[in-house]
This record gives sequence, C-alpha cells and structure tokens, in this order.
Amino acid sequence: MSLPSHLSLRIPETDLPRIVIIGGGFAGLNLAKRLYKADAQIVMLDRNNFHTFQPLLYQVATAGLEPDSIAGPLRKTFEGHDNYFFRMVRVTGVDQDRKVVKTLIGDLPYDYLVMANGSKTNFFNNETVRKNSLPLKRVVHALNMRSHILQMFEQAVLTEDPDESQALLNIVVVGGGPTGVEVCGALAELKKHVLPKDYPDLDISRMNIHLIEGTDKLLSSMSEKSSLEARKYIESLGIKVSTGVIVEDYIEEHAVLSNGEIIPTKSLIWAAGVMGNVPEGFTRDQVLRSRLVVDKYNRVIESDNIYAIGDIAQMPNKKYPNGFPMVAPVAIQQGKHLAKNLKRWLTGKDMIPFKYFDKGTMATIGRNKAVVDLPGGLHFRGFLAWLVWMFVHIMYLIGFRNKLITLNNWIWSYFTYDKGARLIIRVFDRKKNLEDEEKDLVAY
Amino acid sequence: MSLPSHLSLRIPETDLPRIVIIGGGFAGLNLAKRLYKADAQIVMLDRNNFHTFQPLLYQVATAGLEPDSIAGPLRKTFEGHDNYFFRMVRVTGVDQDRKVVKTLIGDLPYDYLVMANGSKTNFFNNETVRKNSLPLKRVVHALNMRSHILQMFEQAVLTEDPDESQALLNIVVVGGGPTGVEVCGALAELKKHVLPKDYPDLDISRMNIHLIEGTDKLLSSMSEKSSLEARKYIESLGIKVSTGVIVEDYIEEHAVLSNGEIIPTKSLIWAAGVMGNVPEGFTRDQVLRSRLVVDKYNRVIESDNIYAIGDIAQMPNKKYPNGFPMVAPVAIQQGKHLAKNLKRWLTGKDMIPFKYFDKGTMATIGRNKAVVDLPGGLHFRGFLAWLVWMFVHIMYLIGFRNKLITLNNWIWSYFTYDKGARLIIRVFDRKKNLEDEEKDLVAY
Repeated sequence: MSLPSHLSLRIPETDLPRIVIIGGGFAGLNLAKRLYKADAQIVMLDRNNFHTFQPLLYQVATAGLEPDSIAGPLRKTFEGHDNYFFRMVRVTGVDQDRKVVKTLIGDLPYDYLVMANGSKTNFFNNETVRKNSLPLKRVVHALNMRSHILQMFEQAVLTEDPDESQALLNIVVVGGGPTGVEVCGALAELKKHVLPKDYPDLDISRMNIHLIEGTDKLLSSMSEKSSLEARKYIESLGIKVSTGVIVEDYIEEHAVLSNGEIIPTKSLIWAAGVMGNVPEGFTRDQVLRSRLVVDKYNRVIESDNIYAIGDIAQMPNKKYPNGFPMVAPVAIQQGKHLAKNLKRWLTGKDMIPFKYFDKGTMATIGRNKAVVDLPGGLHFRGFLAWLVWMFVHIMYLIGFRNKLITLNNWIWSYFTYDKGARLIIRVFDRKKNLEDEEKDLVAY
Repeated sequence: MSLPSHLSLRIPETDLPRIVIIGGGFAGLNLAKRLYKADAQIVMLDRNNFHTFQPLLYQVATAGLEPDSIAGPLRKTFEGHDNYFFRMVRVTGVDQDRKVVKTLIGDLPYDYLVMANGSKTNFFNNETVRKNSLPLKRVVHALNMRSHILQMFEQAVLTEDPDESQALLNIVVVGGGPTGVEVCGALAELKKHVLPKDYPDLDISRMNIHLIEGTDKLLSSMSEKSSLEARKYIESLGIKVSTGVIVEDYIEEHAVLSNGEIIPTKSLIWAAGVMGNVPEGFTRDQVLRSRLVVDKYNRVIESDNIYAIGDIAQMPNKKYPNGFPMVAPVAIQQGKHLAKNLKRWLTGKDMIPFKYFDKGTMATIGRNKAVVDLPGGLHFRGFLAWLVWMFVHIMYLIGFRNKLITLNNWIWSYFTYDKGARLIIRVFDRKKNLEDEEKDLVAY
C-alpha cells in the first residue's frame, strides 16, 4: 500500500500514559480487551483492519470457509472505549532512545510499548522458494492458495501435454506440523469428494499430494502416539509422506528433495516454519533466533518499558529452554497476563511472573479424524477427538457471527461432502504476491 | 490472466451436435440446466469458474456478505452429465464463416452457438471515469469497492488536512437505477449503524453520500409511485439526490457535474449504465446499440445457428421497441425458453416465439424499506415490500448453501445492525483493476 503524503499518525494527547500495542493477533487482542479499565491511553497499530483466527486459515485456503468466518474487524473490539485508538498502518521500526514507534507515515511516541507482531513464514533464506511457493500465514495467502490450486485444475483440463498435466496435478506440502498436516487432510478431502465430480474429464487419481517433513516424524510437538496416528490417518488418505527429508530448492516448477527425488509441481505449499517478525531498532542481545528475548514478566531484556508477547516473545524456561512454542494458547495467555501486570504496574503494584498453563494440543486430519494430547499424558483420537477439535475451535473464534457462520459451513460440508467456496477470485499473481511479501520484510 | 502456451481447448469429438454456450450468468446457466436430456454435446465457456448472483453484488460491496453467499461454482451444475463440458477461458471473438469461437487459447468449433455473455459497465467513452471510478458488475468489483471504501475511512483517521479528509468522506454514486439506489441504501446503513462506532474519532456527519441521476427520476424503469417513494426513502436516509444531472468528468478526484457543481471525492461509484458485451466477429447489422439483434426465437439475425439470450440480446417488440430490459428475469426466461426451442429443433419440431412474462420489479433501500411493482399496476412499499424483496432474492439464489448463508447473515445483521464482512483484504489497486477491465474489452 503506497500511502499519500498528507497522512500522519495523530492521537490526542492526554495525561494518561500511552500504551502502544503493535499487532492485533491473539496476543495483542487479548491484551487490549483486558485493559479497558486501565488508566491508560491504548493505541493499537496493525497493517490489517481485522484479527485473523490463524488456526482455521487452512480452511479458507481449501475452499471450506470465506475470510469473514475466521476474521473480524479489530475496530469492533474497540467500540465504546474513549481511550482506545486503532490505526491501520505498517510499523517499520522502533527507536528505543526516543521512545517512538516508526511507521510509514511518521513516528508515534509511547510510554509503554508492547510488541505483539507475531511471526512470519520462514523461507530459510531460500529466495527461489520465497518467490515461488505458497505460504499460509495471512488471509491473502489463503485466498491466493485457494484460487491458485483451483486454477491448476482448470488448466489441467486444457492441456494435452502429460508432463504439464502432471505438474499441475502434483501438490507438494512442505512441513509436517499442524498447518501442513491440516492442509493435507483438507486437500485429500477435496480430492476424494469434490474434484472427481467437478472434473469428470480429468483422471483425479493422477493428483498426488506429497507431505515432506524434515524431522523424522509428523506433528513433532505432539506425543509419539499422536504423531504415529496422524501419519496413519494421512497415509490412509492417499498422501505420500516423506519424513527426514528436506525440500532443498524449487527450480522451474520442480521441488528438489534432499533424498535426491525431484517432484514436478506448480503448487509448492510452504508450511515449513515461522520466525519472529522483529522490526528494526532492537539490539543484538535483545533478539535471539528471530524473537525478542523477554524476562518472566514479558519485558524485553535491556529495556524497561518494552514488552513482547506471543510468537515474537522468547521467554526461556525450564521446560522450553528456547522459549514457549509459537502457538495461539501461549499468545492468548501472555496477552491476558500482561494486561493484569500492566494494570498492577500502573497502580504501583509488583508484577507477577508469567506461568504457562498447557491445555494440550490437537490437530485434525480430515473429517472424523483428529488427535488430541492432554496434559498428563492423556491422549485420544478419531471421531471424539475430531468433535473436541471442532468444539474448541468454534469456542475460540472471536464473536458470535464468526461462530455461527463457521458452524453452519461445517454442518453443511459434513453432510454434503462439498466445499462451497471454491471460487477463483483473485487472479493468482506471483509478482503481486511477492511485492506484498517484500513489504513484510519491514515488518508489520 | 496470462495463459501458458501449452494450453488448448480440447473437447472430445462426438456424433452429437455441439452447442457452445458463452457465459454462465442467469441466461446461460438456465439454458444449460434444461439441456440435460438433449441429444447434444454442451460446452460452456466462462472467464470465471462461478455463477454470480448480480442482484446482491452490492451487499458484497458494502460488507454485508462474502462472495460465497452469492456466487457458486459453475462446475457443480454440470456434475454427473457426461455430455457437458465446462472450460474456464476468455472468449475473444466469433468466426461465423468457419463456425468457431475464438479464445485466448485457440478456436472451438460449434454447431450451435449461444451468446449469453451478458453486459458490462458503460462508461460512455469517458476514459478518466473508466480509469478512476468504481464499477459494480463483477465479484472483483464488489470486493474492491468494499476494501476501497473502508480504506478511505482508515485514511481519514490519519489526516489532518480538512480538504483531504472531506474528499475521503464523500461518496458519489452515479446512476439512480436499482444498483445505485441499493448501494446508497446500504452505505447509509453503514453510516448510521456501523461507522460511528468503528470510527469514534471521526465526525461521521461529515460523510456525504451523493446520488446523481441523469434522468428526472430514480428507478425510472419502475412506476411513478415507486420512483417517488424510493426518492423519499433515500432522502430520509440523508442521501443527497440530484436528478437531471450528469457526471461529466472525474478529474483529480473531483466529480464534475453538469449543473456546475464540483464534488471532491475519492470514491466515485459508477452505476450509470451497462452495455452488451459483444465480442468481435459480428456484422454491423447484427449489432445494435451494443447488443445482438435477435428474432423472436432468440436467433441472431443473418445467422442460422447463433442465438443470443439475456442482456446481450436485443429482441425488439411492441412494448419494448429497443428490446427487453437488461434484467435477470428476462435472462432467466430466455435461457429456459431457448432450451425448450433447441430441444424442439433437434427433434425436428418448429420453434416457439419467446414471450416475456413480466413478474414485476422491485428495489430495496435499506432495512424495512423497499418498493415493489406488480404487473397490472399493483404497487406496495415499506416493510411488506422489504420482506417480499428478501423472500424473492433468497428463493432465486442458486443452491441451498447460498440461501442458508445469506439468510443467516441477513438475520444476524438485522438484529445486530452490524455488517460483519468489513475486512480490507484486497489492496485496492487502480492499475490492476484497470488491467482487468482492459481485458474485458476483448469480451469475456
């Protein structure tokens, strides 16, 4: 977005301390919601005007849901609160000495700054992958992926070249974490229930879905049992799984694997990892493995008024020496906890150290199939796990409307085996996509 | 969309006559659905993979609905029919001598050709308007308009320049037909119920919605009563109506009106008219006022195997000497009727002349407000008319899923006064938008 020159960040001056929150994801939103009664001016900056429920992005990418089911306007959260200000703007950096946030349209002074700008796709410095693969971290990515994949099938109908056709029908998913596994499950459903009916003149059995994981197991953050069952589920859906294999490059529409295999594909879905979205202005000590190092109060080290929560924060602790996993529950809990701590701080009380309450982890692999790990080693799978997965995701969706529409869509899809949102709307445009990504390099 | 060179139109050869239908709108879709049992091979070409329910596009543009509520995959209609083929491709012309349709990826021979490619926005040869205004004929237009308008408000929060701010808050809607009136109604609802809460630091009373109509009344195709009542409704919503006034130009973000008025605005919504979407290859006699002249069997004059139905067809008759109005009911009826006639023709029977059954016209102007004209001079308005409007639109929506989601959204919006889909997702990009429009010049 190129912004006109007349724009500037104008926030009314008050006697209240100003808390600037960068990012309206799980961490930032949960923090902001719990500061309503604080004696402070709250300013949230985000490049989007909406919150994204990232755990369901893959359903937008696979034609199950439209964005309005999983995203809601951030301003709605701020309604009716006089000391709250939302600004849709891209943050480029932080000046810790001058205590200002730098944005594309000028500086914004802060008294307290909360870095909640989450994570972005990690392409591991591979430029060809970055330029040509399909990431899945944002709503635009999901919409692009939906249009791109459907367009590959439309083109496959139009080609007689067998090699072209095979490259159009091969999909390579890189990364066997929850995103990769869930995308594979949804693609397998499309392959089984939707595509054969939509494309009667294509031999859909020629569609191959490959799942490539660098470590030796899928869902490596989950229990051994869940990991093995997920693999069984995935393979039962006809997906070709390779573990201990890395996608080394993506050259002229061929995925080059570390085991020597070369897979022709026009759809390389990159879910291999994420990294913290740290803008410029932090010291070498403050940044560790792309995340901001924080103490047990989520305060960024070597600073006294900058905090970091969620994916971008790295809080080393006994169980997780490299910081907590970059998942929604940590972000939500840190957001809520920091709200409590900032309110204590503003009223002269001491802060309380953050403690992570692990509620368990789960992943779904297509209809009726899911795995759930609860704390204490409890584990279950199958239909019950799938119901639990749906229940938890519906409950955590922001707002009644999103819950209603998503539930509706799920019920409809469950009984009809159909995916209603298979519309090719964005012309998939790698160049445009890339320009968007370039802007991401200057963070938010 | 730039298509790779290996693509080609390959349709299996059969002994059956091939009927090629260009366009999956109301006319083409209703025709195709009724040819299931015909002894013919049916090929539909469309640049989109979905049917668009155009009467509700304005609700997508004003954040009430997402595209999947009003658009459905065309391939779904074709499921399970062996002699049906859908190809997503852009048609550039017709060669009547060689009996082929010309597309970006090659020629397709036909035995019978049905032109159902509808209409496109008429910019009345004004290049600056075409380049800078917001049309509303396609799903991409609606999504662009939604993002654009919301973005204007986000920018208004960021400017201190009063002129800039006013240009951001002014919206000029050109054209007082159903689209213009319905867009105005929806914008007025946003202004009343949503924007003041979303933008507490903007003075929303400074937002002006202008409706400019060239003739001397709104909804000129409806009864005098409906026209006057619609105007009353529109004005009661605070919209400034000018009739008998034309927008002559749009220069540097200023709408130049024929009455001398100049309105600064960054949002010029162009609903001033549509024109037939005729590709190259037709004779001068066959094209009249941008539409294809047809006889009473919808056969294009001076041809014996080309038909035209819906907006693109001009069938002069007593009541409508310039052809039927370019509205959905005509397209639906002509599609159904041509199906019957083609089936008769293929079995050696004579064709039956088309007769238009006028079921009446209606328009809605925000919640609880609508006007309905029934044949025979019956007219009603207000809440009852609004319920009828909703009922008819839900009934005509294609598919149970679209009905369900749309109804859900409407019920939710009615009780909450909210519009849930106010997400700025497409970066509004005039240049990109324009490139898409350029492609429209070569039709489909």
